[in-house]
Amino acid sequence: MSQLTICRAEHFNAAHRLHNPAWDEARNQQVFGKCNNPNYHGHNYNLEVRLTGPVDPETGYVFDLKALSDIIKREVLNRYDHRNLNLDTEDFRTLNPTAENIAVVIWHRLRAALPTTLKLAVTLFETDRNFVEYDGQGA
Amino acid sequence: MSQLTICRAEHFNAAHRLHNPAWDEARNQQVFGKCNNPNYHGHNYNLEVRLTGPVDPETGYVFDLKALSDIIKREVLNRYDHRNLNLDTEDFRTLNPTAENIAVVIWHRLRAALPTTLKLAVTLFETDRNFVEYDGQGA
Amino acid sequence: MSQLTICRAEHFNAAHRLHNPAWDEARNQQVFGKCNNPNYHGHNYNLEVRLTGPVDPETGYVFDLKALSDIIKREVLNRYDHRNLNLDTEDFRTLNPTAENIAVVIWHRLRAALPTTLKLAVTLFETDRNFVEYDGQGA
Amino acid sequence: MSQLTICRAEHFNAAHRLHNPAWDEARNQQVFGKCNNPNYHGHNYNLEVRLTGPVDPETGYVFDLKALSDIIKREVLNRYDHRNLNLDTEDFRTLNPTAENIAVVIWHRLRAALPTTLKLAVTLFETDRNFVEYDGQGA
Amino acid sequence: MSQLTICRAEHFNAAHRLHNPAWDEARNQQVFGKCNNPNYHGHNYNLEVRLTGPVDPETGYVFDLKALSDIIKREVLNRYDHRNLNLDTEDFRTLNPTAENIAVVIWHRLRAALPTTLKLAVTLFETDRNFVEYDGQGA
Amino acid sequence: MSQLTICRAEHFNAAHRLHNPAWDEARNQQVFGKCNNPNYHGHNYNLEVRLTGPVDPETGYVFDLKALSDIIKREVLNRYDHRNLNLDTEDFRTLNPTAENIAVVIWHRLRAALPTTLKLAVTLFETDRNFVEYDGQGA
Repeated sequence: MSQLTICRAEHFNAAHRLHNPAWDEARNQQVFGKCNNPNYHGHNYNLEVRLTGPVDPETGYVFDLKALSDIIKREVLNRYDHRNLNLDTEDFRTLNPTAENIAVVIWHRLRAALPTTLKLAVTLFETDRNFVEYDGQGA
Repeated sequence: MSQLTICRAEHFNAAHRLHNPAWDEARNQQVFGKCNNPNYHGHNYNLEVRLTGPVDPETGYVFDLKALSDIIKREVLNRYDHRNLNLDTEDFRTLNPTAENIAVVIWHRLRAALPTTLKLAVTLFETDRNFVEYDGQGA
Repeated sequence: MSQLTICRAEHFNAAHRLHNPAWDEARNQQVFGKCNNPNYHGHNYNLEVRLTGPVDPETGYVFDLKALSDIIKREVLNRYDHRNLNLDTEDFRTLNPTAENIAVVIWHRLRAALPTTLKLAVTLFETDRNFVEYDGQGA
Repeated sequence: MSQLTICRAEHFNAAHRLHNPAWDEARNQQVFGKCNNPNYHGHNYNLEVRLTGPVDPETGYVFDLKALSDIIKREVLNRYDHRNLNLDTEDFRTLNPTAENIAVVIWHRLRAALPTTLKLAVTLFETDRNFVEYDGQGA
Repeated sequence: MSQLTICRAEHFNAAHRLHNPAWDEARNQQVFGKCNNPNYHGHNYNLEVRLTGPVDPETGYVFDLKALSDIIKREVLNRYDHRNLNLDTEDFRTLNPTAENIAVVIWHRLRAALPTTLKLAVTLFETDRNFVEYDGQGA
Repeated sequence: MSQLTICRAEHFNAAHRLHNPAWDEARNQQVFGKCNNPNYHGHNYNLEVRLTGPVDPETGYVFDLKALSDIIKREVLNRYDHRNLNLDTEDFRTLNPTAENIAVVIWHRLRAALPTTLKLAVTLFETDRNFVEYDGQGA
């Protein structure tokens, strides 16, 4: 049976700061540079969510993209959009909100909300030029 | 020998409607929502076609992108561009023209027109935020 | 007082056909080409709406972009999105739905719904490469 | 003599919050909604700067775009990039950092740094769908 | 009668070099920097052509965008695409091919090929971040 | 341990010409068409570089994207940007600068400059519609 990948793109706007509390200020500044700014900065995050599986012969869908959009809104956007990731979310209260860590957390949140028969991958764009991809490898 | 993937992007504009004739109107409306509109709606479809294979040492090409563009025009655009997919094409007279089904049909049309030594994958964007990818898995 | 322009971008997907009922088929075909296809084709229309006026010193807004988005949804998207412009809308039952005519109709609909103190302009993209701009000149 | 407009696009990432200290929390929440979040959110701001004037016959330039880029970096990016606009800048300590107000402040900063013989306009994108334009009208 | 602006976007790929033969090498290097490289560099130029005029009530068009595309191809792309602007074109054999000068020359070529009743403006993108606009002012 | 892919996008502007010196002019013209133009043409090349590996628990990074950007600048942009690939670089003095060959050369340059523990892939866009991907297969 044909296996396809479908993709839905969503976006959210959030503030964040990169910081490792186990390090002193000098080390944080050296490693994270201007991303370590104590008062935060922010991004328009673009998120692409991919699901891979067979096409349902009755609907012609792998998965209803409207339903996928609703799940992304409930699991990700409602938690992160127009928030400070470090201060306003449980997910990044102690976990450093790098693009890598955000992508892994989003993948786990969506994984738990989606059928296990579908393969899941996420791409998170912090800017047009910096982005990360995660498909659950090593999870 | 180095194996590369080359890609050509093309686009076509078409009308379509999602509908399963085996279902009653209520079920069609419930599953396909506004995409079930009896008088059709439409999209600017963007199509990316990827070919993977070795680089020809004489040309430095995996495959001539101009030739690939011509094949996509002949096999896909000349059939679908500025058409109603449900009414004007043989491909979707009985097959529901979801993005998934369109991608699979395009893949098969291009597969038959391209050298079997090259791996083929297609990405079809129905909108900037909804798209599907097919590489022949399960074909 | 500073005069600024604010802009909100929205999009809708619709089917349409270009046709002048006063002409015979040959003339329609000659002028409108493949856009005259009897069974329609379609587009992802992108719409930019611009409002020009003074900044409210209390809010720092020219006009609330969320409110502008709601007005565009009510006046334009709810009427045109996932519809056949020729068959499903009153606006284009007798008016040829060229990008020019759609832009003029949208401008008039939005003009009636927005404060007269604000200057209004709309840009309508039929594709990334074909678009029209209207600011009410000659209305 | 031919008058042209040249444009340079730059971007910066910043956190901000919309808030009017003269209002109570309920009013702030009602007007600014999720943009009022006390812990800030953020954006990838894209900035387009336009200069209009005659072409220098010796250089073929209206103004050296590399020099314009350097001025934008010095006047705007070095102040706002990877900062919290409300807390880390003098410009928005008491001025509400709406897109409109940010655009007006940027226009004045650049106006003072550029030859008065050139007309200046700025476009500031808060997101791909929300943006503002200012050319100094009423300044 | 309603006055609208219609726009068609096209693109061409060309090599060029910025150089003023009246200057010595040091001055050329100082003013044009790496754009002065003796062996040329190149760009994917994007060109937007805008026409402003009344809507023809019979066609619903200001001007047929397909016809405009053909004129741009004949007047601009056939001359510049996949060429070296300095060596392969008459237009820039002695005129420095800055974005400004290219835009002015394109405007004059198109002006001569289009109805004088329509206002003409061109935007030329040398890169996504560097572009110029010309509407004939001072021509 | 989670394995992620991070990506950094950069761009450079260069002139080039496709030509096989072992062939006569007729054959070169037939195979490479207008890309064979003796005086060169050019492109805005966009380059995406992907690294796959585990997330460092101390930094939350797979690899510092600022460091990756610096390496791309040193290894690729400083060599190719605003240059003629055929005349000004050692890499393409005898190797035909097709997108395929450029991507393979860039991959080898970056491979030598990056930790061997990270998987490397590059995507090179010659235009928005023509691009190639290489991940070292067969190297």
